[in-house]
Amino acid sequence: MQSLSSKLLENAVEQFATLPGIGRKTALRFVLHLLRQNPEDVKKFTDSITALKTEIQECKHCHNIADSDTCEICSDSRRDTSTICVVENVKDILSIEATGQYKGLYHVLGGIISPMEGIGPSDLHINSLIERVNSTTIREVIFALRATIEGDTTGYYIYKKLPRQSEIIVSTLAKGIAIGNDLEYTDELTLGRSIVNRVKFNL
Amino acid sequence: MQSLSSKLLENAVEQFATLPGIGRKTALRFVLHLLRQNPEDVKKFTDSITALKTEIQECKHCHNIADSDTCEICSDSRRDTSTICVVENVKDILSIEATGQYKGLYHVLGGIISPMEGIGPSDLHINSLIERVNSTTIREVIFALRATIEGDTTGYYIYKKLPRQSEIIVSTLAKGIAIGNDLEYTDELTLGRSIVNRVKFNL
Repeated sequence: MQSLSSKLLENAVEQFATLPGIGRKTALRFVLHLLRQNPEDVKKFTDSITALKTEIQECKHCHNIADSDTCEICSDSRRDTSTICVVENVKDILSIEATGQYKGLYHVLGGIISPMEGIGPSDLHINSLIERVNSTTIREVIFALRATIEGDTTGYYIYKKLPRQSEIIVSTLAKGIAIGNDLEYTDELTLGRSIVNRVKFNL
Repeated sequence: MQSLSSKLLENAVEQFATLPGIGRKTALRFVLHLLRQNPEDVKKFTDSITALKTEIQECKHCHNIADSDTCEICSDSRRDTSTICVVENVKDILSIEATGQYKGLYHVLGGIISPMEGIGPSDLHINSLIERVNSTTIREVIFALRATIEGDTTGYYIYKKLPRQSEIIVSTLAKGIAIGNDLEYTDELTLGRSIVNRVKFNL
């Protein structure tokens, strides 16, 4: 696409094109859309971004994003406070919440151990996790980390740090073929794992 | 997707989801992306939108969007000022400019005559077009309007309003099969038109 005839337009398109997966053509569509909206609506749009960026906080317990110093999950009395699900980032919380299958708490590491990218255990919220496990009554810690060597390494590292004497269950997400998927389209490693870890047939 | 645990996040996602073609999932991806950026970059992002909305003007000649009262095309001395290409909206200008095949001026109607949607000639920038043709030396008026009954009607209405006595050429975009397209996938009307309006074979 050629450069646009208006600098104001060009600037806005350039900014929208910094969003993930958005090229100049889509950015232009967004900008022309906003140009057609009334000024109050556009102000609402930019205000919501500014407010998000300036007011959002990190939950002091689990490092989730929060509107105050404690996130809505940690302050929800209906949640099972004896279970902590360890995730890499905030997006993973949203994914798991969307399943509606988990009622415990979370702990956001803020990344994963990756020597290749120079991320070590001290760059992650691991100490605060160990502290939580030590200071509150935790029955189970679930590793919901990516199914890669880095994910496994991170889980193993944390596992070794957890208090040994206690009766804490440590678990990890089940690996296997995706629901609805053909065996044909499942990679060998996953298929192999799903045979080894087969579960009792249940109607 | 379930509601998000943060109101600030929820608001921003809601706003991004108002953009054309953007659902809540993609909106969330944008918002989490912005959350990871540094504050100055996010400010640049929102400022570019605010500036666009508050400072942009309409070209007093052709109704294109402009940074001042005359757009960059109308103020470009290298353009052929004897030709006006009539388009429905600003986006059409960008599309034609992207082809690099046109060096004349434009005139943005701001819509198309559509009784179904209650848009009549007086809602469009038709009078200012006639005035331009009457007051400056125009050699050709090109209708680059959509290939529908509404587009043809709008062209015909303007054609009837143009000064008769003059030597102005009035033309319209060629219709035919798209370059690279199979005949098989070209609709009958277009294919029929492309046979009737066939042009001399040219190597």
